[in-house]
Amino acid sequence: MDNETSDETIAVVLSELTFDAQGLVPAIAQQHDTGEVLTLAWMNRDAVTETLRGGRPCYWSRSRKKLWKKGESSGQTQRLVEFRYDCDHDAILLMVDQKGVACHTGRRTCFFRAVRGGKVETIAEVLVDPKALYGS
Amino acid sequence: MDNETSDETIAVVLSELTFDAQGLVPAIAQQHDTGEVLTLAWMNRDAVTETLRGGRPCYWSRSRKKLWKKGESSGQTQRLVEFRYDCDHDAILLMVDQKGVACHTGRRTCFFRAVRGGKVETIAEVLVDPKALYGS
Repeated sequence: MDNETSDETIAVVLSELTFDAQGLVPAIAQQHDTGEVLTLAWMNRDAVTETLRGGRPCYWSRSRKKLWKKGESSGQTQRLVEFRYDCDHDAILLMVDQKGVACHTGRRTCFFRAVRGGKVETIAEVLVDPKALYGS
Repeated sequence: MDNETSDETIAVVLSELTFDAQGLVPAIAQQHDTGEVLTLAWMNRDAVTETLRGGRPCYWSRSRKKLWKKGESSGQTQRLVEFRYDCDHDAILLMVDQKGVACHTGRRTCFFRAVRGGKVETIAEVLVDPKALYGS
């Protein structure tokens, strides 16, 4: 998105979304041009607001219990291309432009475990050493 | 997947996946060839087992509190192409071949609400009348 979203539109989105008992909605991030599904993370109301306002995806970390802007530690940032949500208003799909790798393991996508040929396999390679992303 | 997954491999997948306090994991369904994200639904252990065993995605309905095989009411079935999951083992990505429409509103995808041009818009058209899917 080239422009920040207005407070009025953000209010419409927040009024339509249904947050769960923990105040969260699952948010899928998909690379806008290749279609690759990169991550599934979680957003609360503040994360939705921050994402729409700034054009940079912001999530709620359930483990650290804080907002985090994708890439703030690793440098592997996301730019928001389009914010979408579903018919039941309880799932978000972010079309993004992902710089570098989306996964903390240094892989492009988090979805690298697959049942293939009857076995569970790792189907994506490490592109960046996690030590280079987060320090050793 | 052309063949059923063995009980041994299903046991590996179930041992790796982390289910939430309700015994569920979110499962994204993505059209395998176009990359379109169709739905986000939920799976419990039985749904995972049934999906891997039969090659037809099976979900847990949180509203009806029962297993449902995608398309059993509407005829808009899914065929499983590949079962994947993520680095944290708490999200599933199903590569599927979706027949017809995935959304109960008669749209191809559930993710048809978008913030576009500063407003919230409906970006996908109804392809099949819901009455034709579920009866009037």
